Amino acid sequence: MDQKKLEELLHAVHKGQLSVREGVHRLRNLPFEDIGEAMIDHHRPLRKGFPEVIFGEGKDAEQMIMIMERMVETQDDILVTRITEEQAKAVLKRFPQARYHPRGRAITLQVSEEEVKGKGVILVISAGTSDIPVAEEAVVTATMMGNRVETIYDVGVSGVHRLLAHREKLMEASVLIVVAGMEGALPSVVGGLVARPVIAVPTSIGYGTAFGGLTPLLAMLNSCSSNVAVVNIDNGFGAGYIASLINRSQEV
Amino acid sequence: MDQKKLEELLHAVHKGQLSVREGVHRLRNLPFEDIGEAMIDHHRPLRKGFPEVIFGEGKDAEQMIMIMERMVETQDDILVTRITEEQAKAVLKRFPQARYHPRGRAITLQVSEEEVKGKGVILVISAGTSDIPVAEEAVVTATMMGNRVETIYDVGVSGVHRLLAHREKLMEASVLIVVAGMEGALPSVVGGLVARPVIAVPTSIGYGTAFGGLTPLLAMLNSCSSNVAVVNIDNGFGAGYIASLINRSQEV
Amino acid sequence: MDQKKLEELLHAVHKGQLSVREGVHRLRNLPFEDIGEAMIDHHRPLRKGFPEVIFGEGKDAEQMIMIMERMVETQDDILVTRITEEQAKAVLKRFPQARYHPRGRAITLQVSEEEVKGKGVILVISAGTSDIPVAEEAVVTATMMGNRVETIYDVGVSGVHRLLAHREKLMEASVLIVVAGMEGALPSVVGGLVARPVIAVPTSIGYGTAFGGLTPLLAMLNSCSSNVAVVNIDNGFGAGYIASLINRSQEV
Amino acid sequence: MDQKKLEELLHAVHKGQLSVREGVHRLRNLPFEDIGEAMIDHHRPLRKGFPEVIFGEGKDAEQMIMIMERMVETQDDILVTRITEEQAKAVLKRFPQARYHPRGRAITLQVSEEEVKGKGVILVISAGTSDIPVAEEAVVTATMMGNRVETIYDVGVSGVHRLLAHREKLMEASVLIVVAGMEGALPSVVGGLVARPVIAVPTSIGYGTAFGGLTPLLAMLNSCSSNVAVVNIDNGFGAGYIASLINRSQEV
Amino acid sequence: MDQKKLEELLHAVHKGQLSVREGVHRLRNLPFEDIGEAMIDHHRPLRKGFPEVIFGEGKDAEQMIMIMERMVETQDDILVTRITEEQAKAVLKRFPQARYHPRGRAITLQVSEEEVKGKGVILVISAGTSDIPVAEEAVVTATMMGNRVETIYDVGVSGVHRLLAHREKLMEASVLIVVAGMEGALPSVVGGLVARPVIAVPTSIGYGTAFGGLTPLLAMLNSCSSNVAVVNIDNGFGAGYIASLINRSQEV
Amino acid sequence: MDQKKLEELLHAVHKGQLSVREGVHRLRNLPFEDIGEAMIDHHRPLRKGFPEVIFGEGKDAEQMIMIMERMVETQDDILVTRITEEQAKAVLKRFPQARYHPRGRAITLQVSEEEVKGKGVILVISAGTSDIPVAEEAVVTATMMGNRVETIYDVGVSGVHRLLAHREKLMEASVLIVVAGMEGALPSVVGGLVARPVIAVPTSIGYGTAFGGLTPLLAMLNSCSSNVAVVNIDNGFGAGYIASLINRSQEV
Amino acid sequence: MDQKKLEELLHAVHKGQLSVREGVHRLRNLPFEDIGEAMIDHHRPLRKGFPEVIFGEGKDAEQMIMIMERMVETQDDILVTRITEEQAKAVLKRFPQARYHPRGRAITLQVSEEEVKGKGVILVISAGTSDIPVAEEAVVTATMMGNRVETIYDVGVSGVHRLLAHREKLMEASVLIVVAGMEGALPSVVGGLVARPVIAVPTSIGYGTAFGGLTPLLAMLNSCSSNVAVVNIDNGFGAGYIASLINRSQEV
Amino acid sequence: MDQKKLEELLHAVHKGQLSVREGVHRLRNLPFEDIGEAMIDHHRPLRKGFPEVIFGEGKDAEQMIMIMERMVETQDDILVTRITEEQAKAVLKRFPQARYHPRGRAITLQVSEEEVKGKGVILVISAGTSDIPVAEEAVVTATMMGNRVETIYDVGVSGVHRLLAHREKLMEASVLIVVAGMEGALPSVVGGLVARPVIAVPTSIGYGTAFGGLTPLLAMLNSCSSNVAVVNIDNGFGAGYIASLINRSQEV
Repeated sequence: MDQKKLEELLHAVHKGQLSVREGVHRLRNLPFEDIGEAMIDHHRPLRKGFPEVIFGEGKDAEQMIMIMERMVETQDDILVTRITEEQAKAVLKRFPQARYHPRGRAITLQVSEEEVKGKGVILVISAGTSDIPVAEEAVVTATMMGNRVETIYDVGVSGVHRLLAHREKLMEASVLIVVAGMEGALPSVVGGLVARPVIAVPTSIGYGTAFGGLTPLLAMLNSCSSNVAVVNIDNGFGAGYIASLINRSQEV
Repeated sequence: MDQKKLEELLHAVHKGQLSVREGVHRLRNLPFEDIGEAMIDHHRPLRKGFPEVIFGEGKDAEQMIMIMERMVETQDDILVTRITEEQAKAVLKRFPQARYHPRGRAITLQVSEEEVKGKGVILVISAGTSDIPVAEEAVVTATMMGNRVETIYDVGVSGVHRLLAHREKLMEASVLIVVAGMEGALPSVVGGLVARPVIAVPTSIGYGTAFGGLTPLLAMLNSCSSNVAVVNIDNGFGAGYIASLINRSQEV
Repeated sequence: MDQKKLEELLHAVHKGQLSVREGVHRLRNLPFEDIGEAMIDHHRPLRKGFPEVIFGEGKDAEQMIMIMERMVETQDDILVTRITEEQAKAVLKRFPQARYHPRGRAITLQVSEEEVKGKGVILVISAGTSDIPVAEEAVVTATMMGNRVETIYDVGVSGVHRLLAHREKLMEASVLIVVAGMEGALPSVVGGLVARPVIAVPTSIGYGTAFGGLTPLLAMLNSCSSNVAVVNIDNGFGAGYIASLINRSQEV
Repeated sequence: MDQKKLEELLHAVHKGQLSVREGVHRLRNLPFEDIGEAMIDHHRPLRKGFPEVIFGEGKDAEQMIMIMERMVETQDDILVTRITEEQAKAVLKRFPQARYHPRGRAITLQVSEEEVKGKGVILVISAGTSDIPVAEEAVVTATMMGNRVETIYDVGVSGVHRLLAHREKLMEASVLIVVAGMEGALPSVVGGLVARPVIAVPTSIGYGTAFGGLTPLLAMLNSCSSNVAVVNIDNGFGAGYIASLINRSQEV
Repeated sequence: MDQKKLEELLHAVHKGQLSVREGVHRLRNLPFEDIGEAMIDHHRPLRKGFPEVIFGEGKDAEQMIMIMERMVETQDDILVTRITEEQAKAVLKRFPQARYHPRGRAITLQVSEEEVKGKGVILVISAGTSDIPVAEEAVVTATMMGNRVETIYDVGVSGVHRLLAHREKLMEASVLIVVAGMEGALPSVVGGLVARPVIAVPTSIGYGTAFGGLTPLLAMLNSCSSNVAVVNIDNGFGAGYIASLINRSQEV
Repeated sequence: MDQKKLEELLHAVHKGQLSVREGVHRLRNLPFEDIGEAMIDHHRPLRKGFPEVIFGEGKDAEQMIMIMERMVETQDDILVTRITEEQAKAVLKRFPQARYHPRGRAITLQVSEEEVKGKGVILVISAGTSDIPVAEEAVVTATMMGNRVETIYDVGVSGVHRLLAHREKLMEASVLIVVAGMEGALPSVVGGLVARPVIAVPTSIGYGTAFGGLTPLLAMLNSCSSNVAVVNIDNGFGAGYIASLINRSQEV
Repeated sequence: MDQKKLEELLHAVHKGQLSVREGVHRLRNLPFEDIGEAMIDHHRPLRKGFPEVIFGEGKDAEQMIMIMERMVETQDDILVTRITEEQAKAVLKRFPQARYHPRGRAITLQVSEEEVKGKGVILVISAGTSDIPVAEEAVVTATMMGNRVETIYDVGVSGVHRLLAHREKLMEASVLIVVAGMEGALPSVVGGLVARPVIAVPTSIGYGTAFGGLTPLLAMLNSCSSNVAVVNIDNGFGAGYIASLINRSQEV
Repeated sequence: MDQKKLEELLHAVHKGQLSVREGVHRLRNLPFEDIGEAMIDHHRPLRKGFPEVIFGEGKDAEQMIMIMERMVETQDDILVTRITEEQAKAVLKRFPQARYHPRGRAITLQVSEEEVKGKGVILVISAGTSDIPVAEEAVVTATMMGNRVETIYDVGVSGVHRLLAHREKLMEASVLIVVAGMEGALPSVVGGLVARPVIAVPTSIGYGTAFGGLTPLLAMLNSCSSNVAVVNIDNGFGAGYIASLINRSQEV
């Protein structure tokens, strides 16, 4: 559309129907969206392989389905996060081709061909068993974005030898996502063992002074390992997303 | 410059040196700044009468003077806030035409003709004598931006009759700026007495649980008067600025 | 009543039934409410066109209806905020002339003639779709108070071109209300594009470190755009109210 | 009991059955409770007219009744606070002589004769209608402890003339309890109008940055009126209790 | 002045120079301050014996002296709090009749005759030796306001027998001021031993999680003794002030 | 298993099938778990008599039972904390040999012979009756870990004589666990009476500024008694656990 | 003294100079300190070997010396904490027999014979080199209280192998003090490696969101190792003190 | 050393001087550091090109020089952060080969050959001029770690067109570091414009409710752009470090 407007304008200039001066004036006063958006959105196509994401919390099954229907039309890959089992059932009934990930509380509906775009392995580590839903949200996200993903669960710092037993796996990963609640110490320990970027995800697991994840968040931000960066509490999706970007080669 | 580029491009299209298709392509790929900025910055001239502001805190006199020298060249009105007496002396030595406002801890250097742009009166009210520097920062700002400004100081809520004694003045104001530390109750009381917008400014005055202005800030955000909006702690400048915009007629 | 008392007193003085000295004494000792209230409340009539507001949260339908019945007698315009669908039904049954605004979670019952009192347009902008209920609360309020209101929704800062596409609308607004949760960055960006007052409304949308709206609130208070003032979290009503006052000319 | 033990010991010393040295030893090694408690608890009888209090929140009706049954045996006056209507019904069924105060969410069971022990009037003031339950808790407490109690409700600071209308009542009170949520400004204003002690009670009324009563609490602690002291959020009972002590003559 | 205006108005009505109707109109439109202030300030004379207070922190000696000079003219008793030794010297040089209280960091300049207005004894208790300056601020204030004041210092709860040793003194006090930093437990223990009001003052003594007095403040607000009310951190003056009001008989 | 790998390797070296150099290389590159874990876990057997713990909160009865079934196979003693009555019933149905502790909200399933491993007595003290569930969690834990445990409940600091009445018991304890909500003052008072370690447990009992246990936590961390260390809010289990370790003789 | 009073009283009863009734009366009314303190302070002699402690922060050298002079008279061992080098020099000049510990910022003046009272070894571990002053404060305290103390410094969790290298030492310690700033993860890791009590000390080392030690404090309170208890930020003294009590046998 | 021990042990096994059984026993009981460290530290050599870092804050020039002297011996590249001009001078005097970066408040002493190890460009963006020191710390770090680094400064969100003008540069970067104080909105806007990872660095720039960087930190954690991860306040070094790791190919 905007392309068409530009063409018409230039044709008119070309034919002399519009003076150069008037052309400049019109160009500067064309509704911004027409030119501006055209220019800015060059990077849209770069986004191929990025799922469209629906944050499920606070939405009912009907709303989700309605949004998904619109997306399916545009052939987008879809990721629904924070979905309950009940909601998942309703969604699957409508989209039998979708896939439900109960541990990661997510639904994926992949239209594009699955293709490994990331070069290395994304390793997702969780401190406790209660942190697994957040970890799995990261796994689902990173897998959908075309990465090989591996996991090590239940290797909290109070039994540091359990973590050390996986040294090989740690050393081979390209990016590491470390998910922990309570004192949030695991990213520091992991960060000290590897020479790759660590994305730390605090979880709201814990009680009392865990303050719904504030404590592990603060701990992670103060990590004595310099290769640790942090995302929001329980934000497994975000961790999987940024880890995918890190794992992609620059050429993409 | 950008205007020139556009002209050249259109001339080339006009003369057939450039096909329409190529023209469209080039337009879309012109460095963004050339078109983009040209389009976005239409509102620059609307800014006439807005001072360029230097936040003085943490800058030494030399730095201020250097920045001011650049601004003076472009014929901007200049407002320096949070300046100490000592710094002010150094600045005045270099710019004898500048004016120092000791109570408002500010320096102004006005190049444009003074002209009243605001329709009504901006009334600046402070709860305690210690709040006056912040109130005066608002006064200096609003005055420089072309408003008639009046003040009522030291009318804290523990002596509510002192405030009521100024009922006439309160009723006549177009916009009210209310500056208070400690329990920050004054904007609620003032807001209940007038039917005009009240900009509340919490100050860091107080001790103990005043928490450097957090307490009056929270109080103001919870005002039971619905005509109160709030700016940052000690932000007399911001209050003066937004009050000026409110006081201006839309035509400006 | 108080008027009557004053008349009686003056009649008695006039007829000599009461000495001047005694008259002065009585005037000074008349129960305060009789004189005081009479004097202070001169500005009541100025309030014409201001709705009486019922904060619905925590009240059941019966309580709302009871309060509304009293108000209807005094011919006030009524605005009920934070109402659920269920409560709304009960209220509408009793007051069929009322109007329910589901998106804004509000009911209005307008007795006065609708009349545009505001000079310009109030533009309400929201960052995400989840922020819309708060934005609509502002819309309902400002509309009821006699303003032309326009809206731009779902223009969060992670897609800044979507906002820029509405540049014209932004430039033409008289006052802007910007509603955002999460990082609360939208008011700063909008504030930088316009030369008019921006009322920022943080919402409790988000999770983890959004802290129920504290994060966008703090961000808005620290806006690098000087034309931004802030109201309480989720306070769409307050934003609509103060924006209406800003949009009114003083004569009203 | 302890008195008896002491007597026996001294008798034995008197009769020479116990040497002085042994007597000293035994006295020093008597279980502490026997002597210690006897000495410390002299002030028990001073407590006459103080209700025994049961904090009802989190207790079911059965538990309350069980505790009350024990207390009734010892002829104590009983005050149950934070009780729901449902719980109240169950309690009243078991203790028909008890009295339910629905607005104050309390039950009283007074065994002692009602007698006015306080010299002056305790005036309980609330800012909003939502603050009334907390205010009534103070009223019930202070009444039960033998005070004349008066109330002024719904005189928030956004309509300061409503408060001023009650100037006479304010001036005559012996102690004032001021209950307010939101910005918590009322105690400062009241405190500035009287020369008597003001007990301020913040309430959890409000939303967003009211933070469950933290905001009015902080405001009250920072009151610019020096005659204001503060109790915990929603602590109407505590305010009524301490106000009663203030109102009592020292001789009691 | 206002009295004069009222007289003139009534004379005019009496003489028929002014109709009753016009009189009523004028009365209602007299500048508020003239009538309003006259009515509200009836309680001024009640204030006799209340010191005028200068908060010394952040003021230099010159400023203090200037303010004091104005006050001395009006024959007010003056209390300067939070004064350094150096500032005190400068003030004493100018006002040799003033008295410096080094432990309470205060200066008093008493013009009125000293007279005991309080009926009982105000007992000021401090937990640690570091809390003494705040305790002494309360002592100076209460003494100046006409009370007999006694003190017990250094009786922290980690040696509860030290406190119990003063049982007699505790039982005889009319009002108690309890000053404590760190865990702020002393008011609860004292409150449990007496049947009189306890004013608790948290101090900023402590380190780490004492958070500048926030910890003792919170502890005091949550006291399990119901006769405890709290003032701001380090607010010895406020505690002395309100304790004085409690100790005064109502007739004063 | 790992032992076997080591043996094979050494046999091969012994037989010359593997050069020393290659042996060193292999040892260094053996999967870490094989050697590392063997070395690190020497202290496992020291753990005899430590229960395996299941944090019940957020788990349903089925999950608990599943985990318990696995543990029972390995002959571990099991402690389930934070269990509801309903969940307890389901668990007991499956494991009739388990024991439910309703006051401590725990289930124990002890396989090892009960044996007193601690030398002295662990004394558990609670301030209020509402703190008892947390105190009992400590009791159950410490008892299961082989300690003699005694309790003193309902000895809050507002009636300090109630505590002093138990002086003998206090003096005889080897370790003390002090559980308190509200102002959290009890550990300081107890700590001042004994010369043994005190483990303080803040509880979430209280309202308003108790902030879910934050206030007693802060108070306990600032204890003026130097023999107090603190665990997380409501963490009765942790207190019982560490007290058990303190009470054990070093030889274990 | 109190013993003498008791003897006199009993002698009088024995001789019949005082009736039993009067004796009981006098006993009950003897100033509390005489009996009460005698009874309560039985545990004083148990305190032998506990240093008297002066918290140096905020005291000048003169004040310290004055307090020390009083203590020296009573033959107490003295520990001065948080002392600067300058202050230390002044103290050493007056008390040449005292010993300055520059790394632990402490002075000790030991009068009692040095004697090892603790049975095992107290191991003090620090995460970073900046945490050493706090660790050394614990070392000085524990050493003075008669313990063998060993240290491992600079074994932060980002290099977990550095810690593991000291496994033997960790396993042999009787009590462990773990000092850490930043993310405060070290106590969890250490706690997972040993079966002995761990006293965790958060330090104010760090910047930004370390919040002066709040972050490691919270992390330590949420430790997933159950054998961790926590003291105040930077409270090396308290950690050394309670560790000493843990290390002592009860008989001492 | 450890290698030698292993060799000796295997030689002894080979020669039959040590039985296999004894060999296994010794291997399992070799001091952990000897084997453990050897195994764990395989990744050391991977660290080539990582600077050793000295956090300068709180250290004097002497201390820095002492630490640097030790490092120089081991041929490490050295980075000193948070250094003042004065300290820098002293360091440069001792190490003339070092390089001082005044804007980044850092000193570098590079021993290894400079070599570009990163594949793409790291783009460092700052919102305000006051954020530049933190941004430059990231620049110095990333440059030293072998990356091509570019910068865009002073493109705050209140002038979003200034940022858009650099669209090309944004699109070409491999990793982006975005540094912002105040409302911290820039990373969200930048994140929405690129499809690469964004490391956000909050700065302590701002006043009042900026709370020393807490506000931008919270805003960044709640970014509506999913490609944003966050490091500690003012942690330019950490951002530069992790960005370098992201920019490196895995093979390095």
